Amino acid sequence: MSKIKIAIIGYGNLGKGVECAIKNNDDTELYGIFTRRDPASLSPLTEGASVFSVNSILEHKGKFDIAVICGGSATDLPVQTPAFAENFNVIDSFDTHANIPLHFKNVDEAAKKGGNIAVISVGWDPGMFSINRLYSECILPDGNSYTFWGKGISQGHSDAIRRIEGVVDARQYTIPVESALSAVREGKNPELSTREKHTRECFVVAEEGADKERIASEIKNMPNYFADYDTTVHFITLEELKKNHGGIPHGGFVFRTGTTGFDNSTKHVIEYSLKLESNPEFTSSVLVAFARAAVKLHSEGVTGCKTVFDIPPSYLSSKPYDELIATML
Amino acid sequence: MSKIKIAIIGYGNLGKGVECAIKNNDDTELYGIFTRRDPASLSPLTEGASVFSVNSILEHKGKFDIAVICGGSATDLPVQTPAFAENFNVIDSFDTHANIPLHFKNVDEAAKKGGNIAVISVGWDPGMFSINRLYSECILPDGNSYTFWGKGISQGHSDAIRRIEGVVDARQYTIPVESALSAVREGKNPELSTREKHTRECFVVAEEGADKERIASEIKNMPNYFADYDTTVHFITLEELKKNHGGIPHGGFVFRTGTTGFDNSTKHVIEYSLKLESNPEFTSSVLVAFARAAVKLHSEGVTGCKTVFDIPPSYLSSKPYDELIATML
Repeated sequence: MSKIKIAIIGYGNLGKGVECAIKNNDDTELYGIFTRRDPASLSPLTEGASVFSVNSILEHKGKFDIAVICGGSATDLPVQTPAFAENFNVIDSFDTHANIPLHFKNVDEAAKKGGNIAVISVGWDPGMFSINRLYSECILPDGNSYTFWGKGISQGHSDAIRRIEGVVDARQYTIPVESALSAVREGKNPELSTREKHTRECFVVAEEGADKERIASEIKNMPNYFADYDTTVHFITLEELKKNHGGIPHGGFVFRTGTTGFDNSTKHVIEYSLKLESNPEFTSSVLVAFARAAVKLHSEGVTGCKTVFDIPPSYLSSKPYDELIATML
Repeated sequence: MSKIKIAIIGYGNLGKGVECAIKNNDDTELYGIFTRRDPASLSPLTEGASVFSVNSILEHKGKFDIAVICGGSATDLPVQTPAFAENFNVIDSFDTHANIPLHFKNVDEAAKKGGNIAVISVGWDPGMFSINRLYSECILPDGNSYTFWGKGISQGHSDAIRRIEGVVDARQYTIPVESALSAVREGKNPELSTREKHTRECFVVAEEGADKERIASEIKNMPNYFADYDTTVHFITLEELKKNHGGIPHGGFVFRTGTTGFDNSTKHVIEYSLKLESNPEFTSSVLVAFARAAVKLHSEGVTGCKTVFDIPPSYLSSKPYDELIATML
């Protein structure tokens, strides 16, 4: 059986993660990496991997099964995914929740025009967390849903700190509040404010002689990012930052608490949690599993934009259906 | 919009749970209850609910959208599900894991013959646990899966104790071993024997003058059921049993621990857990959500036997797709 040929567009942390996930799945192979940079400047992890300029991608039409678009959600994916969906099956991890309906519409039009399939917003949130929110709300319609993130590095918040004058580098951890987790887990259905759900812990390297008090105050009072949270700021050296905060861990929890019974007096708690040593590597692994599903759906004639909500679980697996129901059901 | 008409076949704990779940979903309504008993002897929870003899069910062909078959897996469902699938869309909670492939085959033939859809093995295990095993194995192909059950009442084990001479009544709790859960959760990938995963705790009401030592010994040494486990036996009064052990709670944990990265050195832990005050009411709630999905699939022309692995998550919801991607993705 021929392997699923996957192209990677964009070679940052996510692109490298996809490269690893392709290697770790027996039925997938790397077609090549497309980059906006000079192809000669890239050193893929995979020996002998092809690197192409993204400008030449149309020359590769029909040569691979699907492209994983590994750009950022702010400016890359809203342009790239519709553009590439016209000519290729594609999948992305678009994660700006508020803009998903618009992104869906744009990608759907492009994919249908080209007769391709495009799966958007694949990863863990949006992605596996979304799937769990949906399943559990359908099972327990009378109930409450809670999503907590962390403990993990928030790239957006780390970037925001780095833009403050006098900051050399920074890492920001989002941490769920233990007492809030416990209250939810015990089925107490608490109403939780933003501040009560998560705290933010910042590790900051300041320039020599910088006013640390001002930096800490600017962080803690930054609107949207930090002002609504209890925020702790630690100043550390660049060496400490590299040694102790070099990873990109993340994770979180999705809860549904609800009731059943004729008078809704029977309680249930559904909990889904992830503890990830590498956010981009896990996201990439979800992307490759759904890329497999997308290629299968396209081979059955399905086109247009799809999300994780549209994909039957069995399509994610490389195993025959008979084996799945005999061993995993 | 007309509601989904659901029939219930069999009115035990599961049938009553389905009746409650139908009430708790806005888009479903109870068509009627079919029973092997004298219909006049049943007192449904729902005022005015119709009760029919199961022998008259063919007279109701075409009058409801789907029947939830609430029989037992040992002897009822292997016969009932194929028989009813020839004339109706059906769904069951068949949970004898080893016999699922055979049950699938029999039901598939019958459902296809009748042009109906039949969804089998729906509940939490098989069911939601199976879905989580499948998703997480596809995302982390390099890893280990663990399923723990409990703390909860095992009906089969409670029945086995009740068959011992001198026993009036009994309840058996299956309890996951905390240290095993912790080792898995920490990503230690332990190899666990049957004894190391679960313990069994029994609450037994003995006849007056019965030899408690013999009863305890018969329980602890019962092959398959107890001999491979650390089992505790408590003798209590019938009053205590009714007061403190009258519920049917259950639950459990599905874990996948695995690695990603070019040299598979990055660790991840996926955990799904359920804490259920009523095993049959939760199972029923899963059944009704998948009944909705089955009716939608059948309206699109899908026939034959299906499992939870075949159903796209969005089909479980009564909400429009646009709303799902705007609010839950």
